[in-house]
Amino acid sequence: MRQSDLFTKTIKEIPKDEQSFNAQTLIRAGFIDKLASGIYSYLPLGLKVLNKIRNIVVSEMEDLGGQEISMPSLATKENWLATGRWDTMDVLFKLGAADKKEYALNPTHEEIISPLASKFISSYKDLPFSVFQIQTKFRNEKRAKAGLMRGREFLMKDLYSFHENQVDLDAFYERAILSYERIFDKVGLGDKTFLTYASGGSFSKYSHEFQTESESGEDIVYYCPNCDIGINKEIIDEQKNCPKCENSDLEEKKSIEVANIFKLGTKYSKPFNLVYKDREGNDKTVIMGCYGIGISRIMGSVVEVCHDDKGIIWPENIAPFKVHLLSLSADNEAEEIYKQLQEAGIEVLYDNRKASPGEKFADSDLIGCPYRLLVSSRSLKEGKAELKHRKSGEVEMIDLGGIVNKLQ
Amino acid sequence: MRQSDLFTKTIKEIPKDEQSFNAQTLIRAGFIDKLASGIYSYLPLGLKVLNKIRNIVVSEMEDLGGQEISMPSLATKENWLATGRWDTMDVLFKLGAADKKEYALNPTHEEIISPLASKFISSYKDLPFSVFQIQTKFRNEKRAKAGLMRGREFLMKDLYSFHENQVDLDAFYERAILSYERIFDKVGLGDKTFLTYASGGSFSKYSHEFQTESESGEDIVYYCPNCDIGINKEIIDEQKNCPKCENSDLEEKKSIEVANIFKLGTKYSKPFNLVYKDREGNDKTVIMGCYGIGISRIMGSVVEVCHDDKGIIWPENIAPFKVHLLSLSADNEAEEIYKQLQEAGIEVLYDNRKASPGEKFADSDLIGCPYRLLVSSRSLKEGKAELKHRKSGEVEMIDLGGIVNKLQ
Repeated sequence: MRQSDLFTKTIKEIPKDEQSFNAQTLIRAGFIDKLASGIYSYLPLGLKVLNKIRNIVVSEMEDLGGQEISMPSLATKENWLATGRWDTMDVLFKLGAADKKEYALNPTHEEIISPLASKFISSYKDLPFSVFQIQTKFRNEKRAKAGLMRGREFLMKDLYSFHENQVDLDAFYERAILSYERIFDKVGLGDKTFLTYASGGSFSKYSHEFQTESESGEDIVYYCPNCDIGINKEIIDEQKNCPKCENSDLEEKKSIEVANIFKLGTKYSKPFNLVYKDREGNDKTVIMGCYGIGISRIMGSVVEVCHDDKGIIWPENIAPFKVHLLSLSADNEAEEIYKQLQEAGIEVLYDNRKASPGEKFADSDLIGCPYRLLVSSRSLKEGKAELKHRKSGEVEMIDLGGIVNKLQ
Repeated sequence: MRQSDLFTKTIKEIPKDEQSFNAQTLIRAGFIDKLASGIYSYLPLGLKVLNKIRNIVVSEMEDLGGQEISMPSLATKENWLATGRWDTMDVLFKLGAADKKEYALNPTHEEIISPLASKFISSYKDLPFSVFQIQTKFRNEKRAKAGLMRGREFLMKDLYSFHENQVDLDAFYERAILSYERIFDKVGLGDKTFLTYASGGSFSKYSHEFQTESESGEDIVYYCPNCDIGINKEIIDEQKNCPKCENSDLEEKKSIEVANIFKLGTKYSKPFNLVYKDREGNDKTVIMGCYGIGISRIMGSVVEVCHDDKGIIWPENIAPFKVHLLSLSADNEAEEIYKQLQEAGIEVLYDNRKASPGEKFADSDLIGCPYRLLVSSRSLKEGKAELKHRKSGEVEMIDLGGIVNKLQ
C-alpha cells in the first residue's frame, strides 16, 4: 500500500485523555481512534493487525475441531434471568426496547449458547462438540482507562465445548491449553505468557488464565520459573506452592490476563435443561467448558510488551505490513522495488510521501513494521538498499537485485 | 465437512413464531437460530454463506479504492445530538451506562465517521478517499417480522466517500453503482435487481436504491423494462416517467431494498466542521457520499428469490458448499470421493449419516447446495455416481474417475 493513499496520518502529540501506553501509541501511529473512554475504531493499519490475530486464532480453533458460528450482541432478559446473572453481573449493559421488553448487550455468551445447543443435543451420539465465535462484547465499565486492555466494547474469541462426562471435558481442556500456547507463540507473546491457576467454581478447584508479564498489567501473579506456571494472587492463600513442582520460591510479577478458560460443569447447562440420553437411555446433564481469548486485548498487550521509546515493534506474524519501504529522493527505483515486492506477495507499506527524512524515519519507527527498507540517492550509488531490522536495529546493505529473495 | 460432525440438524416443523419464508427456511435448514424477534445467531452453514457474501462485497469495495476500517457499535449521545438525529431517528437504541452518560447503538455511522475523518483531513491534498466497514448495526424496531430482511441486529457494509466538490462525488457515485451491479451479479441476484430512484435530500434530487423483485418485498416500485430501472412509489407523484427514456408505461412490482446510496453533500460534514483548505487556502466544507448494502439482508433475499417448495437453491458463489455428497450403502467409495474432492479444493458437505435415503434427499434439497452427488450400491454397479443440479433438476451419471474434473 502507498502511504500517500492511507487516509490516516501519524500524530505527534501524545493524546491527553489516554493514560495507557497502548492506546496512546496506537492512536499516535494511526492504528485506532478513540470515540469515548473504552470505545475505539480500528483504522486500516489497526484492522490489518486485528485480522491477523483473528486468523491465527480461528485456525487454531478449527484445528481443535471448533465449528465457527456468530451469536448476537443483543440478548433477552429472560436468558440472563435464567442463570441469575441479570442481577449479579455488574458490567451488564441493559436497555429497553420499542417492544417494551428489556435486553442485555452480551459480555459473554453462556446464556445464548446453552439454550441454542439444547436444540441440537438429544443423545450421547450428539456429543462431544465445540463451537466458537469471534464477536464484539460489551462491558459496562465505570472507568475504562487501559486502552485496548479493558474496553467497554471489544473483540473476543469465545469457544464453548459440550461433553458427556468429566473425563471427556478434561481431555479437551488439555488440548485447548496447547492450542492457546500455540496462539501466544504465533502472535509473539509466547516468551512472556504463562498458564496461571485462578479461582475455580463449584465444579472445579481451579480455572486457568494465560497471563502476559508486563509492568502495565492489572493482575499480580506468583510465578514458578521451574514450571513456567503462575498462581493468581486471588488464590495464593489457598495455593502457596507451585501446583506442579511444589516449589515455594515464587516470583511476584505484574501481568495482563490475555485469556481464561473454565470447566463450567453443569453451571449453565442446568438452567437451560441441556440434557442428553446416555447409552442406557437415562437423561444426563451436559458438561460444558468455556475458553475465552481477547483479540483486541492481544493487540494492546503486544504494544505494551513489544516496543521501544520510538514506537511499536510488531511481531512479524501480526504486523500490518512486513516491510516499510522508504524512498529518499529515489522515487523511480523505490517504485520499481515496490512493484517487485508486491508481485512477490510480500506485504509492503511504501512511504512515497513528500516528507523530510526525519519525518519518514520517525513514522517508520512509530508504526513498527519488522523491516525498514531504505532506498536513497546515497544507497543507489552503491547499487544497494538499506535494510534495517526494527527489533534488533541491525542494518544490512542489500543489492537491488536481491531484495525480493532476502525478504521472502 | 462431514455432516455427522455438524452440531446442527435440519428441523422438520416450520417454526411457528416466524412469518417470513427466509427465516422459516433458514432455521429449518440449520443456517440460523432465532433468539428473539429480529435477533438471530448464524450457525456454521449460515456463517459460511454470510462470509462468502462479505468477501464478495469487500473485494468490490477494495477495487473501488475503499479502505477497510471497523467502527464501534456504541456511540456517544453528543455525536447523535450534533446532527439532531438523537431525537429524530425513531429506531435508535438508547442506553444509560455506568459512567452516568447516555449512549446509542449505531444503526448507521455518519455520526462516527464524520468527526473521525475530520482528524485526518486538512487540505485538498487529503481528498478524495473512501472508507468502509462490515459491521453489526442495530435498529430498535417495534415489530421485526421479516426474518433477515429487517432485523434489530444485522450485518451491513457501509462505505463513506469524501470529496472536494460535486463533480468528484458524482464520478465516484457512478463507479459505486457499477460496483454494486457487479456485487448483485456475483451473489446471484443480478437478474432480479435494478437501480431505483428514491427520494433525495437538500443536496440531491434523488437517492438511489437497489431493489430486488420479490413478492415478499415490503417496497413497491414502478419499473421501466426498457432501461431496467425503477422508481420508488414514494416519489412516483413527482417522477411519473422513467428518468432515462421518459417511458410512462411502467410496471408495478413488489421488491426488497437490498442497498441504498446517497449523495450526502455537506449534511454530516457541516455539524462536525469537516473542512479542508482548497488550492487558494480557503476553508471549504467536505462533500460526502454514503453507500450501504445489507450483508445479512442479501442472505435473506437470496432465500426469498432462489428456492422451490423443497428448499433453498443457493447461487454457486455464496453456497455453503458447492457439492453435497450423499452415500447410500456405499460408504467406502463415498469416503474415497470425499477425500478426492477435498484434495482438489472443492467444497463438499458429505452426508455420511446413518439415515434413510428419503431423509438424506430431503435434507439435501432443503440445504440447497448447487450439486448433489449420489453414490449408491446401484450407481456403483455401473462404476458411476449420480450428479444432480439443484437448480435445473438435471441428472447426469458420471464415471467415478471423472468426478473431480467434472466439478472443478
